[in-house]
Amino acid sequence: MIAAQIYYEAKSDLKADQAALKAEREQKLSGYYDLPDSQDALLGEIETFAKKTAGFDNIIVVGIGGSSLGAKAADRFLRHLPQRNNKTLIFLENGDPIELSAAFDKINLHRSFIFIVSKSGGTIETISIFKLLLSRLGKSGLDSSCADQFAFITDEGSPLDRLGHSNQVSRFHIPKSVGGRFSVLSAVGLAPLKLAGYNVEKLLEGAKATRDDFFKDDPLALSAKSSFIASSGKSINALFAYAGGFEEFVKWYVQLWGESLGKIDKRKKRVGFTPVGLIGSVDQHSFLQLIMEGPLDKTVTFIKVRDFKRNLSIPAIALSGLEKNDFVDNQPFERLINAQADATLEAVKSAGTPCDELAIDRLDEYHLGALFMYYELLTSLVGVKLGVSTYNQPGVELGKQILEKNFK
Amino acid sequence: MIAAQIYYEAKSDLKADQAALKAEREQKLSGYYDLPDSQDALLGEIETFAKKTAGFDNIIVVGIGGSSLGAKAADRFLRHLPQRNNKTLIFLENGDPIELSAAFDKINLHRSFIFIVSKSGGTIETISIFKLLLSRLGKSGLDSSCADQFAFITDEGSPLDRLGHSNQVSRFHIPKSVGGRFSVLSAVGLAPLKLAGYNVEKLLEGAKATRDDFFKDDPLALSAKSSFIASSGKSINALFAYAGGFEEFVKWYVQLWGESLGKIDKRKKRVGFTPVGLIGSVDQHSFLQLIMEGPLDKTVTFIKVRDFKRNLSIPAIALSGLEKNDFVDNQPFERLINAQADATLEAVKSAGTPCDELAIDRLDEYHLGALFMYYELLTSLVGVKLGVSTYNQPGVELGKQILEKNFK
Repeated sequence: MIAAQIYYEAKSDLKADQAALKAEREQKLSGYYDLPDSQDALLGEIETFAKKTAGFDNIIVVGIGGSSLGAKAADRFLRHLPQRNNKTLIFLENGDPIELSAAFDKINLHRSFIFIVSKSGGTIETISIFKLLLSRLGKSGLDSSCADQFAFITDEGSPLDRLGHSNQVSRFHIPKSVGGRFSVLSAVGLAPLKLAGYNVEKLLEGAKATRDDFFKDDPLALSAKSSFIASSGKSINALFAYAGGFEEFVKWYVQLWGESLGKIDKRKKRVGFTPVGLIGSVDQHSFLQLIMEGPLDKTVTFIKVRDFKRNLSIPAIALSGLEKNDFVDNQPFERLINAQADATLEAVKSAGTPCDELAIDRLDEYHLGALFMYYELLTSLVGVKLGVSTYNQPGVELGKQILEKNFK
Repeated sequence: MIAAQIYYEAKSDLKADQAALKAEREQKLSGYYDLPDSQDALLGEIETFAKKTAGFDNIIVVGIGGSSLGAKAADRFLRHLPQRNNKTLIFLENGDPIELSAAFDKINLHRSFIFIVSKSGGTIETISIFKLLLSRLGKSGLDSSCADQFAFITDEGSPLDRLGHSNQVSRFHIPKSVGGRFSVLSAVGLAPLKLAGYNVEKLLEGAKATRDDFFKDDPLALSAKSSFIASSGKSINALFAYAGGFEEFVKWYVQLWGESLGKIDKRKKRVGFTPVGLIGSVDQHSFLQLIMEGPLDKTVTFIKVRDFKRNLSIPAIALSGLEKNDFVDNQPFERLINAQADATLEAVKSAGTPCDELAIDRLDEYHLGALFMYYELLTSLVGVKLGVSTYNQPGVELGKQILEKNFK
């Protein structure tokens, strides 16, 4: 279960908000709303596929941005679970030659199953790394001999899709109306996560519950929170998550929030908010000073985990001169980290920064799915209230054009 | 070598800026200025120490914030170098029970040399994890039997220092006037990095060159850049580094920038800037849209690496339907990633965001040391121009007080 608590005054019209997202959903403005259901066929396919590829030691996901951030966030969040198998899962995102060389030193490519993930089917980093992998595997091109080791995750009809079709390579399709940063609950996330051993059905279940709750009576107060953020005048939204497992999740959030809302709105005005991802208690020693005494241009959402499912306490060892730390002796580490979250929230709030809090029961697939959907719905609602096109990213095209022009 | 290029108009008074930092240096307002020299005694000590501890398989650094971020940034930046030995280096920062359990599953504590790093000597996370390690090693307290496996890095006379002294545990002192976030070139960074095999002398050499250059004729334009940032009205400063090796460096930058400048100034006004760390080309697929079309409240610094020292090219493999990606065929990946940096800079600049660029020759100790010093000097200069106390962090105390009060 997720519980939400908002520590500021916020007015909103839930009925209007529900109607707005219902319209987006029905008009298929984005297909992410429907990913939690109607995927039985895909789940069956992935199940079969996982069995077929069980013999590989490693899983490589070649993809960048929305093609990698979701699955990466999930594996980091969930990797402590017993169902995680012992396959190495690595993400090749960047065309950095040192990083690529290091990956090849670390894993045996011949024992690796490789996903090529690109919605458009033509991402420059992804296709370049794909070529490098083919070459390293001793191939001079793609042919049906690659069929056992590769799968493509892409839009139906994309160049990559057609290439796979011609060469009998397995393909999973991303629904046309589901953009990269909203695609974690499509094959983009589900296929690699299933191969790593996770219960992807639970991921969908958590997402479905959060979505249906919003359309029922919005117990997580998404309507109020989105109204507050959209009209607060605060230009920065920090997410302060108190568990190391959120390390990559906050990067997923940064893409979702920054790329969806950082837009030129209907009235030609530049709008949007800068997302900041923080991990507690680590970033109390890094970013907190700025929140406490810097400009009041931020909102902060704290996330806590109620039960870490690890029985680990601070031993009552007497250290001469350090007695002032003994107040946590014999207490679970879990209590310390959550008390730090509470204390920091109280301090931040008292210094004048609007705060809210999410508490999740556990770091598992269900709660992760719920959080993915929570942030997707929140993004959609703020997008509606800002009057932006939430699901495109026109601003990234210019850099691509300049690259091509300058390179030649 | 580092080369700097500023793409905006900026006026400044170099003589005044040099005088301001010279005064800080002479008054020992911060001791970081002097870390690149006068450390022969420490270097000798660390050299001997590295030989004495060579038999351990792992190095554990227990510390948080300024006690871990610098060494962590350095190991991430430098780990591809041949001088890096095969010791596992792990950082235990957070009191997250899942992360702590995972670390214990991964390494043999009995084969690990352990640094306890805390400037004040009483950081709650650090001391709690220290107790846990003692307990896991089968000890009910600290005594001289621990002397071979532990070292403390702390202020002279701190509770931790005194505890170590009483129990014959090796100690390295942090100069009193060097704050945590400015301490990477003290024993805090140098000791663990030396044990991992790095050439720490080169780290100091790079830092020294950057510092001395500033006091000579400021070829990196720190004076102009700091004036621009301090008076630009831009509330967010993004660092967009085009190499995976910067992944932890940008977190070090976030602490340095956020905690040093996010302050209540002399006139009781809240000032400071929100630092954002980005990795290219990955974050072109995440944060770039917001820079291009969102509010014009940011400056962006691009960092490029001239020579990755890896001979890795994009193979000319024909993929039917994907011919539009062939313009990079046979080109080094290094050329692609640097061309992406150039193209993105051009796009961001044309959209109205002030940009500057740093280019470094290589990812090695010398250039890392130079970058550490570059950012420390820049922070000091902006601090002077904002009129804040750059070297303290009064805003983090309230949360600690609330924690103690609530916990009992």
